[in-house]
Amino acid sequence: MIAVAMDAGGTSTRCVVLDGDGTCLGYGRSGSGNPVSSGVLVAAASAAASARDAFTMAGVSPREADVWLVAMAGGVADAEVELFREPMRGLGLGLPPVFEGDAMATFRSGTWQDSGYALIVGTGATAVRFEDGRLVAACDGLGWLLGDDGSGFWIGHRVVRAGLAALENRGPATRLAELVGAELVGVEVPARALEGRAPQIAAAIEALYRGRPVELARFARLAFQAAPDPVADRIVAEAAEALAATVSAVITGGAPGPVVLGGGMLTHNPALAAQVIRALPPGVATEVHSVPDGLSGAAGLALRAAGTPVDAAVFERITGTLAALRVAC
Amino acid sequence: MIAVAMDAGGTSTRCVVLDGDGTCLGYGRSGSGNPVSSGVLVAAASAAASARDAFTMAGVSPREADVWLVAMAGGVADAEVELFREPMRGLGLGLPPVFEGDAMATFRSGTWQDSGYALIVGTGATAVRFEDGRLVAACDGLGWLLGDDGSGFWIGHRVVRAGLAALENRGPATRLAELVGAELVGVEVPARALEGRAPQIAAAIEALYRGRPVELARFARLAFQAAPDPVADRIVAEAAEALAATVSAVITGGAPGPVVLGGGMLTHNPALAAQVIRALPPGVATEVHSVPDGLSGAAGLALRAAGTPVDAAVFERITGTLAALRVAC
Repeated sequence: MIAVAMDAGGTSTRCVVLDGDGTCLGYGRSGSGNPVSSGVLVAAASAAASARDAFTMAGVSPREADVWLVAMAGGVADAEVELFREPMRGLGLGLPPVFEGDAMATFRSGTWQDSGYALIVGTGATAVRFEDGRLVAACDGLGWLLGDDGSGFWIGHRVVRAGLAALENRGPATRLAELVGAELVGVEVPARALEGRAPQIAAAIEALYRGRPVELARFARLAFQAAPDPVADRIVAEAAEALAATVSAVITGGAPGPVVLGGGMLTHNPALAAQVIRALPPGVATEVHSVPDGLSGAAGLALRAAGTPVDAAVFERITGTLAALRVAC
Repeated sequence: MIAVAMDAGGTSTRCVVLDGDGTCLGYGRSGSGNPVSSGVLVAAASAAASARDAFTMAGVSPREADVWLVAMAGGVADAEVELFREPMRGLGLGLPPVFEGDAMATFRSGTWQDSGYALIVGTGATAVRFEDGRLVAACDGLGWLLGDDGSGFWIGHRVVRAGLAALENRGPATRLAELVGAELVGVEVPARALEGRAPQIAAAIEALYRGRPVELARFARLAFQAAPDPVADRIVAEAAEALAATVSAVITGGAPGPVVLGGGMLTHNPALAAQVIRALPPGVATEVHSVPDGLSGAAGLALRAAGTPVDAAVFERITGTLAALRVAC
């Protein structure tokens, strides 16, 4: 039995080809796989590019695949599924895709158990509870405008605002002023845009309203870079508090179980993850796992979709062999 | 001498027709006059509609006007000025408009003096310093994404986020949960949008990402409506602190002078204005004036544009006769 599993995110698409006992045979990685942010044609091309590399490394033909699973936030709209399949058909894979949510794949990447919790913090932030393999509760993940407290956008947004407030002398002094200012060097500002303002302030207005609001997430790293700095450190501490409150909201009243931490903000900033872990409600988290993405979970979900149970041994085989392939790449 | 002056805002356009000694003869009011938010055709139609009413009340023909002044945030792009003039030409007014900024008109609405300060808080928030009739410094007014700390958007945004966080049990309990929830009644939510969430949360996502972010300013009134409430009261107190910091940044180091408070958030919420006034740096504000809009300032600017000086007597005549016309409407 051959399974192909993908974890399609806004930044990259990751793919693994594995056999029925959970041995990962090939790995591939490509560009943005999210149809909402990049359009279905880009997402489909990324999926096929990552699959081509994974099948090549595995030495297996795409025609041999028995199941194709795609983990993705939001999924692909019904009307666009045929467009999404087209480049995979070009590789010789005619199977219809099975879609799963990204939260499920992240949770399944950290544990083989069917009940527990996941906290995923990238540009956004969501906590979820699983019972018997089903998502039964979600908290936050409300997007940049309404929620995502403690997320990459949330931190980056505060970093920019605090930096600009300090540059205007209406907020406390902080290294973020200099760091944010450095990101805006080279922005051209028409003289009439100044209106009594400093050039760096006018440059921020000029440059940052041009992009999408979520792009402010790129400033989040400055909060960690500025440390120790009272303003930046407070932003990080408040992010950790907010994330702990979000995950506690799905944990409170739930049965003990594993807690899986995923998403770039937690995996790349261990100090933030440590603050969140310390703030978890006592006695509920039986274990805490940090995962780089949802790919090994997607692999297990592909086996399950093909009727193969994933016990502790299969789970360990997937994660172990996948880690080895990733090191090789 | 006949002058026509307009204060064109995002919500409404106000117009006054006055004679050369500052006696206001007619007043008119129409819809959105901001070309950036509503397009130049709507702004032009609003301007002409408000002017038609003002000239009719004054019993003066638009053909008799010697000067036409328009106070407006951002002004009209050069390429669109002819479109903006078209409906006024239809009324018989062929003069080219003189444009002034909304901050200048607000400041001039509160004082006849040439130096001083203004704080304008509507959907946005800006503080400005004037010296010898020129805008020499501005603070904040960076827009909803980057600044406008303490503004209507800032308050409304926090109100919505705090209400949703409480509904999800990840934020402190607050009456805002109920008040925000009540605003979302009737929003239809597809079952698949729930994903483990409460219907009110899904409704917020469904409804509030559809509009423009700045529309969240409409939730600001709930912060005042919820009082006394620890979460809502804290939002208002932090808004007042932020506004005081913004106005202090342009006042600090400046000469003593009048401080003019304008914009709907300050005029409709005296509790907020009082908190800001208490927080002003000592010894600089020689007087504090609250103004409903920039119309009397625009009237004075129209006289100045026609070469007529505006001293204390003319200023008093403009504000007194305009107030009487407004009461009559």
